[in-house]
Amino acid sequence: MSARELHLNAFLMGVGHHEAAWRHPRTDPRALDDVAHFQHLARIAERGTFDSVFLADGVQIWGDVRHTAANRFEPITLLTAISQATERIGLIATASTGFSEPYNLARLFSSLDHISGGRAGWNIVTTAGDRSAQNFNREVNLEHAERYERADEFLDVVTALWDSWEDDALVVDRESGVFAEDAKVHEIDHKGRFFSVRGPLNAVRSPQGHPLLVQAGSSEDGKAFASAWAEAVFTAHQTHGDATAFYADLKRRVTARGRAADDVKVLPGIVPVLGGTQAQARALAEELDGLIIPARAVRQLTELIGVDLTDHPLDARLPEFPPVSRVNGAKSRFELVRDLAQRERLTLRQLLGRLGGGRGHQVVAGTPEQVADHIELWFTTGAADGFNVMAPLLPSGLEDFVDHVVPLLRARGLFRAEYTGRTLREHYGLPRPVSRYASAALV
Amino acid sequence: MSARELHLNAFLMGVGHHEAAWRHPRTDPRALDDVAHFQHLARIAERGTFDSVFLADGVQIWGDVRHTAANRFEPITLLTAISQATERIGLIATASTGFSEPYNLARLFSSLDHISGGRAGWNIVTTAGDRSAQNFNREVNLEHAERYERADEFLDVVTALWDSWEDDALVVDRESGVFAEDAKVHEIDHKGRFFSVRGPLNAVRSPQGHPLLVQAGSSEDGKAFASAWAEAVFTAHQTHGDATAFYADLKRRVTARGRAADDVKVLPGIVPVLGGTQAQARALAEELDGLIIPARAVRQLTELIGVDLTDHPLDARLPEFPPVSRVNGAKSRFELVRDLAQRERLTLRQLLGRLGGGRGHQVVAGTPEQVADHIELWFTTGAADGFNVMAPLLPSGLEDFVDHVVPLLRARGLFRAEYTGRTLREHYGLPRPVSRYASAALV
Repeated sequence: MSARELHLNAFLMGVGHHEAAWRHPRTDPRALDDVAHFQHLARIAERGTFDSVFLADGVQIWGDVRHTAANRFEPITLLTAISQATERIGLIATASTGFSEPYNLARLFSSLDHISGGRAGWNIVTTAGDRSAQNFNREVNLEHAERYERADEFLDVVTALWDSWEDDALVVDRESGVFAEDAKVHEIDHKGRFFSVRGPLNAVRSPQGHPLLVQAGSSEDGKAFASAWAEAVFTAHQTHGDATAFYADLKRRVTARGRAADDVKVLPGIVPVLGGTQAQARALAEELDGLIIPARAVRQLTELIGVDLTDHPLDARLPEFPPVSRVNGAKSRFELVRDLAQRERLTLRQLLGRLGGGRGHQVVAGTPEQVADHIELWFTTGAADGFNVMAPLLPSGLEDFVDHVVPLLRARGLFRAEYTGRTLREHYGLPRPVSRYASAALV
Repeated sequence: MSARELHLNAFLMGVGHHEAAWRHPRTDPRALDDVAHFQHLARIAERGTFDSVFLADGVQIWGDVRHTAANRFEPITLLTAISQATERIGLIATASTGFSEPYNLARLFSSLDHISGGRAGWNIVTTAGDRSAQNFNREVNLEHAERYERADEFLDVVTALWDSWEDDALVVDRESGVFAEDAKVHEIDHKGRFFSVRGPLNAVRSPQGHPLLVQAGSSEDGKAFASAWAEAVFTAHQTHGDATAFYADLKRRVTARGRAADDVKVLPGIVPVLGGTQAQARALAEELDGLIIPARAVRQLTELIGVDLTDHPLDARLPEFPPVSRVNGAKSRFELVRDLAQRERLTLRQLLGRLGGGRGHQVVAGTPEQVADHIELWFTTGAADGFNVMAPLLPSGLEDFVDHVVPLLRARGLFRAEYTGRTLREHYGLPRPVSRYASAALV
């Protein structure tokens, strides 16, 4: 194994990442309701010694109820159930800083970290869109920059709460009746613009100290936030050039903050459409794209980039896009879609086909060797520290990846053959944070 | 088995309900950190065909950090882990309406209900005390009545969200690409004093329709709330007279609302201190009371009843209590403690001993036959529909109850010998609610 280690995260999405996966005969759409389906997926990923599994989330119904295989489970509870069916694999849940209280979310992640023996991770999102805000007492969501200001303060509070019990606060002396050393349990006394939180948390420090912090925003605000907080970054790129530019930019920002470049792992998404031959892989990709329902896809694209395309003719070239400064949604995803459409002069229908497989993530249709080549190239040429693997069909696409791509990556010395660590931090090669209140920290 | 069925809920509290349980050699205080301990407790209760297990909760540190065996796990995640180690037993989590958003809590309970196959219950609390409020951006908590107004609106929103997908909304027709019948997925468009929530929930209706609703407030506001919403009521009484008066009053309020008296199960707490002889049971009770640390107990009592007793001499009679109208904490618990202190003219130290075992719940120290007699008497004379069983030591006290008291209750035809239902509602003999949006509901 080379000194630098590839990281693989299995992004679990219902019965597959392709938006029409549920219509394909190789899936069982009733599995969306079945916790055993998700436990099975995690066990497949664990067999492939993936670093982690990951669940996206939102606080509204996404897309079109009529044609969308909708989410069911809340991610933290589902990952708790998955923790009981697995031993080693990390468990990353998305949760929004927009509509929760830091005390509640700090507890949920601390509890998942305790229950799983140190395998919890938090994919931090700020949540765009008025539709979400309308489930939380607001007509209109906060502006992009303000959402990130709130997120920044939210992280200040949550990490302080996670630190509020020092690691050695417990005494548990039956004889004297002293359970904890009260000098090692700290009020955090946070008073800020968005939150006032006294603390301490009502839970002892969790196995990882802090659950792993993950972030996926690639806008200017997003990259600034990531360079301050993130330990892994999920990102989406259509070209090697875009990916290397993003990678270099993010690492530069991280080191400018005084952190080591390697303290943040960059994981672009990849949608591996696998076949025994390239022709078979392409046929599967085309079969899936043929199942897309255009009206539904247009509505999802409209939500994804924050530009209304519902009245645009399917076979007409795309219109000029507004300046990104006017976009209040996911700015980086908007830019990716705009650049793709302009670079390749796509019609709306063509764009939907390009996005249906992975919502902007790179689709690689090919043989296991071709997919492994792609991963190796990006990993060794400054585009990625690993990949967020988004199987188009689940479980079959993940099984194919684990059975046919992972062995190649192992044979090439790129990827572990067995777990060496117990916690998610150990899988990602990241240190366990010292509590900011620890006596040693005051020296 | 008689037509009327006894219900038993196992209230799980760390290593035991007695406040000094962690100091007793029959417990392992390190188990507080161990999910396997709680799964083991639930399996013991399931072996005893209990209706449910139950976890209390708070959003602050209770009592005195130095001398208190503190909480670790957040209840919804812990019960999710327990669901994976059990098959039939119900799973009741406490959660506060004071410091969460209804959309978030509706999702968490829906998710637990899906994951557990219909075994979720919610013990609704409003949360007293400024210390909790200070973890959520407020210096001072809402007043008692206002907390219940918020709770009432919170329940309106949550139950509407749980109903927002009709049971038959899913179509899942691959051929046509129709996943759900959009006419059967409803926005709730709630606009109230505390909340504005558009909906629908981003989860299909859960197995029970609504997770079971439990409530434990016994004040005027609490009883009004319970009669509107609760399906099971946890309550605390020191005398049979108080218990029958409460029982009759609550059932009267329930029927006055147009609900059937049997639609709400009343479960007083019982702390069974078991011994092979009554003398052995009393010796264990005294041994435990001898481990109480008075300074800690006074602080907890002060928090429990909202009256500061920290400067009161331990061996002096208790002072006059203020009028209940001035109490902004748990009013009914205040009245219970006041009545106990006045009726028996207790000193502070004596009161602490009476409360140390169960924080105001009835302690019954005796043989299995005596405990079974107590349960049968209360069950058959209008004091209880069942009991909230609070073992002083865990797991041993719960094991003793399951192995020695449950067989007596079964032999007397009072309690089930095996489960007949699959869901928590079925265990409690309660119907599955029809969605308020169901077409049939409009006829």
